[in-house]
Amino acid sequence: MTTAETTSQVQQWTNLAQQLRVDSIRCTTAAGSGHPTSSMSAADLMSVLMLSHLHYDYDDPKNPNNDHLIFSKGHASPLLYSMFKAGGAIEDEELLTLRKFGSRLAGHPTPELPWVDVATGSLGQGLPIGVGIAAVGKYLDKLPYKVWVLLGDSESAEGSNYEAFHLAEHYKLNNLVAILDCNRLGQRGETELGWNTEAYAARARGFGWNAIIIDGHNYDEIDKAYREAAQTTDRPTFIIAKTIKGKGVSFLEDKEGWHGKALSAEQAEQAIDELKPAARSMVYPVQKPAAGTLAPEPPKKALELPRYDLNSSEATRKAYGDALVALGAANPKVVAMDGEVSNSTYANEFAKAYPERYFEQYIAEQQMVAFAVGTQVRGKIPFASTFAAFLSRAYDFIRMAAVSQANIRLSGSHAGVSIGEDGPSQMALEDLAMMRAVFGSTVLYPSDANQTAQLVAAMANHGGISYIRTTREKTPVIYGPDETFSIGGSKVVRQSAKDQATVVAAGITLHEALQAYDQLKSEGINIRVIDAYSVKPIDDETLLAAAEEAGGKIITVEDHWPEGGLGEAVLEAFSQADAPMPQVVKLAVQSMPSSGKPAELLEAAGISAHDIAQAVRTLVK
Amino acid sequence: MTTAETTSQVQQWTNLAQQLRVDSIRCTTAAGSGHPTSSMSAADLMSVLMLSHLHYDYDDPKNPNNDHLIFSKGHASPLLYSMFKAGGAIEDEELLTLRKFGSRLAGHPTPELPWVDVATGSLGQGLPIGVGIAAVGKYLDKLPYKVWVLLGDSESAEGSNYEAFHLAEHYKLNNLVAILDCNRLGQRGETELGWNTEAYAARARGFGWNAIIIDGHNYDEIDKAYREAAQTTDRPTFIIAKTIKGKGVSFLEDKEGWHGKALSAEQAEQAIDELKPAARSMVYPVQKPAAGTLAPEPPKKALELPRYDLNSSEATRKAYGDALVALGAANPKVVAMDGEVSNSTYANEFAKAYPERYFEQYIAEQQMVAFAVGTQVRGKIPFASTFAAFLSRAYDFIRMAAVSQANIRLSGSHAGVSIGEDGPSQMALEDLAMMRAVFGSTVLYPSDANQTAQLVAAMANHGGISYIRTTREKTPVIYGPDETFSIGGSKVVRQSAKDQATVVAAGITLHEALQAYDQLKSEGINIRVIDAYSVKPIDDETLLAAAEEAGGKIITVEDHWPEGGLGEAVLEAFSQADAPMPQVVKLAVQSMPSSGKPAELLEAAGISAHDIAQAVRTLVK
Repeated sequence: MTTAETTSQVQQWTNLAQQLRVDSIRCTTAAGSGHPTSSMSAADLMSVLMLSHLHYDYDDPKNPNNDHLIFSKGHASPLLYSMFKAGGAIEDEELLTLRKFGSRLAGHPTPELPWVDVATGSLGQGLPIGVGIAAVGKYLDKLPYKVWVLLGDSESAEGSNYEAFHLAEHYKLNNLVAILDCNRLGQRGETELGWNTEAYAARARGFGWNAIIIDGHNYDEIDKAYREAAQTTDRPTFIIAKTIKGKGVSFLEDKEGWHGKALSAEQAEQAIDELKPAARSMVYPVQKPAAGTLAPEPPKKALELPRYDLNSSEATRKAYGDALVALGAANPKVVAMDGEVSNSTYANEFAKAYPERYFEQYIAEQQMVAFAVGTQVRGKIPFASTFAAFLSRAYDFIRMAAVSQANIRLSGSHAGVSIGEDGPSQMALEDLAMMRAVFGSTVLYPSDANQTAQLVAAMANHGGISYIRTTREKTPVIYGPDETFSIGGSKVVRQSAKDQATVVAAGITLHEALQAYDQLKSEGINIRVIDAYSVKPIDDETLLAAAEEAGGKIITVEDHWPEGGLGEAVLEAFSQADAPMPQVVKLAVQSMPSSGKPAELLEAAGISAHDIAQAVRTLVK
Repeated sequence: MTTAETTSQVQQWTNLAQQLRVDSIRCTTAAGSGHPTSSMSAADLMSVLMLSHLHYDYDDPKNPNNDHLIFSKGHASPLLYSMFKAGGAIEDEELLTLRKFGSRLAGHPTPELPWVDVATGSLGQGLPIGVGIAAVGKYLDKLPYKVWVLLGDSESAEGSNYEAFHLAEHYKLNNLVAILDCNRLGQRGETELGWNTEAYAARARGFGWNAIIIDGHNYDEIDKAYREAAQTTDRPTFIIAKTIKGKGVSFLEDKEGWHGKALSAEQAEQAIDELKPAARSMVYPVQKPAAGTLAPEPPKKALELPRYDLNSSEATRKAYGDALVALGAANPKVVAMDGEVSNSTYANEFAKAYPERYFEQYIAEQQMVAFAVGTQVRGKIPFASTFAAFLSRAYDFIRMAAVSQANIRLSGSHAGVSIGEDGPSQMALEDLAMMRAVFGSTVLYPSDANQTAQLVAAMANHGGISYIRTTREKTPVIYGPDETFSIGGSKVVRQSAKDQATVVAAGITLHEALQAYDQLKSEGINIRVIDAYSVKPIDDETLLAAAEEAGGKIITVEDHWPEGGLGEAVLEAFSQADAPMPQVVKLAVQSMPSSGKPAELLEAAGISAHDIAQAVRTLVK
């Protein structure tokens, strides 16, 4: 660039930065709340990015070549929305609807806006998700896009960022650039590291990243850092930008007590006077990427699910792995990831069959769920697996994935006390409760291998957050390979005209219920047995019919704590129905399990065939 | 030491290490499962620690001067139990009960054993808990103990470790020593970093720790590293020990496919032959610390809870902070921590009043819960707070705290859609479900300030995991300061002899229910209103009485997803009772909320006074 060009470039960066600051103030003042000062510190960083480095077409947010920009510091949404305005994506009028009921411009960004990939606002999630998006670009779609993640300095305390550091280095994601807005001030005072930018750099370098320290208000340094990041070919880049919170306004700059606070109308006017914006509502030219096209995918093939012989024996976790391989063969969009237990979850079968579509996450469950979210941003169909107990590690990520309207599939193996000797740390006993309480979720708990395979296939075609709970032990194959199962369905596996009660079970407890059935039958007691493999949505109709036809007596039995699982799902179904409430007895795990053989632990938990039979006898007496 | 002494010392280290290896093999072979090879890699590390550096009295595990040893790699429990045997704490006969039903020696360690502080087995939790224990020793009890944490290399991928790195450096915990058993092999193959010990050191140094790389089978290097750690006065130490999985047995050393697998009896015999143990069941002398005494504590004072005027207005989160200060004044064992939002949760009031008993955790919720667990290991009464939504970040830690039999108190503010403008990322809508499904948990959701204060006081005296959900907005004070509330209780706030239905509410929705009451009354419909502030345990008796006396019609209303919260707790109460099931209508949040004013969002969620009144009208029609 000539000097004149440089001057004019700096002027343009300045103009946009000041407009972004003014708009961040205006929209938060109009809202009466929000985070103007957290937006102002990053305005210069975003101005240079938007004008000179970001390749993005606001008119075509689906262009596969578009860069991805994630505001991990989601509270800086005023800045993001001001960028959307400066890019011509939204009008000033809409900007001023920030945080108002009915507006798309929520307090923290969500994909209600077509230019937002994922919801943020729970800190420390942007970078792990960015890792997933970057990996797809580099390894699967082989597209030129970059992933830019704006981070706050406070959120650097979240361990999830280091899971991302770890994995991004492992996958050598040179298309990933993290920008730390190091403005020194958190919500309640100074961050632990303050302006110690060297300390941040040492951490990033410790994880093998390229780290660059800059003055986040020096346009030249910002521009150079982005250039260096773009030229780095073997690793991701972490730009640590020393910034000033509230930059540009004397009474806000580096002042405590201004986090998450809007200016009054009067203060806003004064601030805007100080900022002296060259223009208020200028639309700036952005660099559109070439119209992108995805490489043509190999054609989809017919799905050939694995088939298991009736009366053979197989673990549902094994059927999960087998079905995943079948899905992988049928649909090239299917990708898988696992948290270093793929030989237990059987995701390793997919890893062997389709190594290029399998992404090892090591023992980092937050990163794993975030990675899944990132891949579905790019249109993939992700399946992520670990022990069901360890999905609890990623609950905030699952919760946020629902806010992100993400379509992800989770598989949790080794559920319940029936895992046996490993003991309570490895036993998921809260996963049904946890997963049911996710907005729009689907919760499946199959009891046999053929059923598992069909449900895994159903998950691939299903939106939202879906979860399948699998069992460690081999269980009898009770359904033929041609029997069909669907989300929201159930199976009545035993019934007669003389049923005196109904046992509702799923997964491992269905097999206990079937044993109880035999025992009771020999005593002259007929029961109906329902396989409630779809815990959410649950099959109300079948349950209601059972209550009506089989004495209005229900026993639920689950390898789970009593709260929030199958039993409560059944109660819920009846409470929603316009029918008399049956008598419901719930069998669930009531005491802390120890180690032991599966059968011993089912017995100790009071959910064995013996306990079911006893509960039925008491109920029908 | 003289050369002769050195030789004899090395011999003793060797003898113990080989005994630990042999015992790790013997007990897992007897169990038929378990992790012998993961134990063998760390046997030399633990032998030197136990004989020459650990100060621990197995006869007096309550001695406050005892060092703390946490096996974060809980799957190496055979090694830990073998140490207990070598220390004379358990007999060989008990060692061989490993993983058997009824044994204290579970697959992963739990505090069923008096020498185990906390349960491990979910990886990446030992170090964050160790931070809490070390902080108490250094800052509160001022005791000479050290905290030793044995980590596996696979678990270094868990972000929680870096939250601990961050905080331990911040608090300059020189009494904390982490030992990484870098045996290269994870469960399903090589770890990401393999034997790249320099990479581990770079990470630790990046976080300001003292890092030492050693050969984990060289006694001299091990001994020196522990010595250096003990002499480090300003920071924690991270020892990276390059080790060999299965060390000492030719067919196990550094071999894949041996993770979590017991040897056959024949293989075990061969292995023991190779290990040539000098003795099989030698009890080794350990260094007992001086009998410790805690500094006498200032006497407890009478608790003077804050008092709020009836019909004034206050946020329950503010009452939480006020009550915490009162508890702090009354009992010096009360400590508090917060995830960098103390000005929102009002934990900052405690921080100001008792800065020496307040531990800022920054935005690291996993570390925060682990810290709380660590403090209660040392007999403190911890209260930890953040936005309720962000406790989901720490769910695995909460789950494991229950396995640890820990007594911790959690406060989640900003619950539900009623927070308003910040949007769904900040709204806890699954916390009741999540917390109910924790073993032995208590879940409280107060509606006014006086009630909050009393419940916070009750939590201080209550065991297990207790959780209080507080509200962002100010709400009317509806109870006088002398009214009493207890865990498991409820309040009937409106009733008459002519009640046609009962509304069960808690927290913010109680105020909506009271408005609905007034509206309905003016229409000639009498309802009973129950404040179910104790969601778990719930007050069955009052609910049953209401159903019986008020038309068998119940409406539950909650600022929470429909699953696992108040409504299901009420259904559960009825299902457990030997009484006819009432008709239950559940009002809960059914769609993804956006930003807006609290009243707008309550209305949009269908849980406002208006919705309650309408539901009652429909039900009693």
